[in-house]
Amino acid sequence: MGQARTIGALDTGPAIGVDIGGTKVLAVRLSPAGEVEAWAKLRTPVRAGDVIETVLVGVAQVTEGASERSSTLPLGVGFPGMLDRNGTAHFCPHLHSVDGMDLRQLLAEHRDPGASTVVLNDATAACWAEHSVGAAQGFDDVLMVTLGTGIGGGMVVDGRLLEGAHGFAGEIGHMVIDPHGPPCPCGKRGCWERFASGDGLGRLAREVALAGRLDCAVKAAGGDAEAVRGEHVTEAALDGRPEALAVMKEFAWWLALGLANLSNVLDPSIIVLGGGLIEAEQAVMEPLRDAFADLVEAPEARRIRVVPAQLGEKAGAVGAALLAAQRAG
Amino acid sequence: MGQARTIGALDTGPAIGVDIGGTKVLAVRLSPAGEVEAWAKLRTPVRAGDVIETVLVGVAQVTEGASERSSTLPLGVGFPGMLDRNGTAHFCPHLHSVDGMDLRQLLAEHRDPGASTVVLNDATAACWAEHSVGAAQGFDDVLMVTLGTGIGGGMVVDGRLLEGAHGFAGEIGHMVIDPHGPPCPCGKRGCWERFASGDGLGRLAREVALAGRLDCAVKAAGGDAEAVRGEHVTEAALDGRPEALAVMKEFAWWLALGLANLSNVLDPSIIVLGGGLIEAEQAVMEPLRDAFADLVEAPEARRIRVVPAQLGEKAGAVGAALLAAQRAG
Repeated sequence: MGQARTIGALDTGPAIGVDIGGTKVLAVRLSPAGEVEAWAKLRTPVRAGDVIETVLVGVAQVTEGASERSSTLPLGVGFPGMLDRNGTAHFCPHLHSVDGMDLRQLLAEHRDPGASTVVLNDATAACWAEHSVGAAQGFDDVLMVTLGTGIGGGMVVDGRLLEGAHGFAGEIGHMVIDPHGPPCPCGKRGCWERFASGDGLGRLAREVALAGRLDCAVKAAGGDAEAVRGEHVTEAALDGRPEALAVMKEFAWWLALGLANLSNVLDPSIIVLGGGLIEAEQAVMEPLRDAFADLVEAPEARRIRVVPAQLGEKAGAVGAALLAAQRAG
Repeated sequence: MGQARTIGALDTGPAIGVDIGGTKVLAVRLSPAGEVEAWAKLRTPVRAGDVIETVLVGVAQVTEGASERSSTLPLGVGFPGMLDRNGTAHFCPHLHSVDGMDLRQLLAEHRDPGASTVVLNDATAACWAEHSVGAAQGFDDVLMVTLGTGIGGGMVVDGRLLEGAHGFAGEIGHMVIDPHGPPCPCGKRGCWERFASGDGLGRLAREVALAGRLDCAVKAAGGDAEAVRGEHVTEAALDGRPEALAVMKEFAWWLALGLANLSNVLDPSIIVLGGGLIEAEQAVMEPLRDAFADLVEAPEARRIRVVPAQLGEKAGAVGAALLAAQRAG
């Protein structure tokens, strides 16, 4: 359990948020003012039957010693996949075991009648957090893009969360941007996340490494070009190695292409980039902004800020908690 | 001036709508119940200075003999391009002469103080009409796609028009779907409208014709494969010619690809297809629905209807009038 940290000043009442990731689970307790009063990290269970139990353990850890009973507090849970508006999981590529489960109902059975229980997509939850208390505070039209193994998305339109008719909005990583591109586990070819995610950067870096033009990263990967991953190239780029910077520039172009597509559709005022990759901010943001201005329609007539996320790994849990609190009333 | 036609039953009060197209201008007067009581068609002027005058002529024609003075009635005008939320035109590829003009202000100068005057993108206006009184009535999450020379887009999210932070939402035709594809006048390569518009169908048909596999359309084009246009192949497809049906199937795949991308982002409950091309409905809709189900994420977990528009060429004018009336209050 970690230290309290102030992340903003709301007045939504106390709430609990849990974010289920592919490998770890993060739980937070928010104060009535929207501050993270306590947090805990657990390992994501492999078996579907253990997911609900893990959420409850996280909830118990962050409410230990709190004055309110945890089963009455608003609870929001973010999952990595497609959840419908009733809270049933439909397609969770990194947690397939929960597909088909009515997660909201399964959680509600452990809670007081009438307690607010919200489940939703993790990137959608993270977007709500960045909009409410993070990098997009004060902006009503927000696009959040999380770059991890794949790409997650969340959107705020006119100050309201865009969830979609079925709850599936924000599957931006599966926007096809090159039908002749590499195959995607989803069954299509050339999905954006094949190019612009952490996996995409690794693929791009290996192509360049195999062509003999990325020796610094090959060295970092133990001399094997096939073992080059995204981290190796971002580290080399942060060291200022020109061949790594060239790879980052190409990566940034693919990232910008998808951001421009989404901006042409949605016209946001701010784009928030989250996920581990953005920690290599210096190497990504500058070429990204240049390419984005080239690719979006009418850049001279509008201002779209492109900024890194502020809430880090807690964004999903915080956003889920905030939504549960706001929907409790 | 045409006959009155009932298109729905609203109660927004009387209003006037004008839709400025690349070649023609269409004006309508709506009854308090949202019926088209009168309409008129004019030619789009070439000179920017004449655009406002043409709108006023259209307004005068549809209000001739009406009981209210036209300068007090709510007036909505749809333009083919990017207009900001204040009503200034920024990028109108088919009417470049108005770029930079504050169209709302120029119109307001000819109207009574306080009269509702709204200007917006034509496809956004058409979407609002189909949502309010057309094919998407009763649906809160709508994607409207108009297939003409290019592709226009409009979106309704949770029952509200999605206009974007600057008013530029819906530039869906410039979503890049193949960076190695044909160049677009916008400066990029492989924009969706290079493949899935009327122009895109013509390009695809000419490729096939030049390869000697579309003789029926070449004949219809006077024996010149370079002269084949979209109409030639849709007509041949409606006649059941297998080689034309094969071209329509490929065209439908590209159309479906973009619709799937947008559905993955927005998760609508209904997609409304408008524009001249959709009049060849039988030849497009069936292969389109098949390809769409293949390309969208989790088709088994949601229902997204794909339907032709109902309001035809009057959609833009009707939608602009409805919005002006609704914003008058």
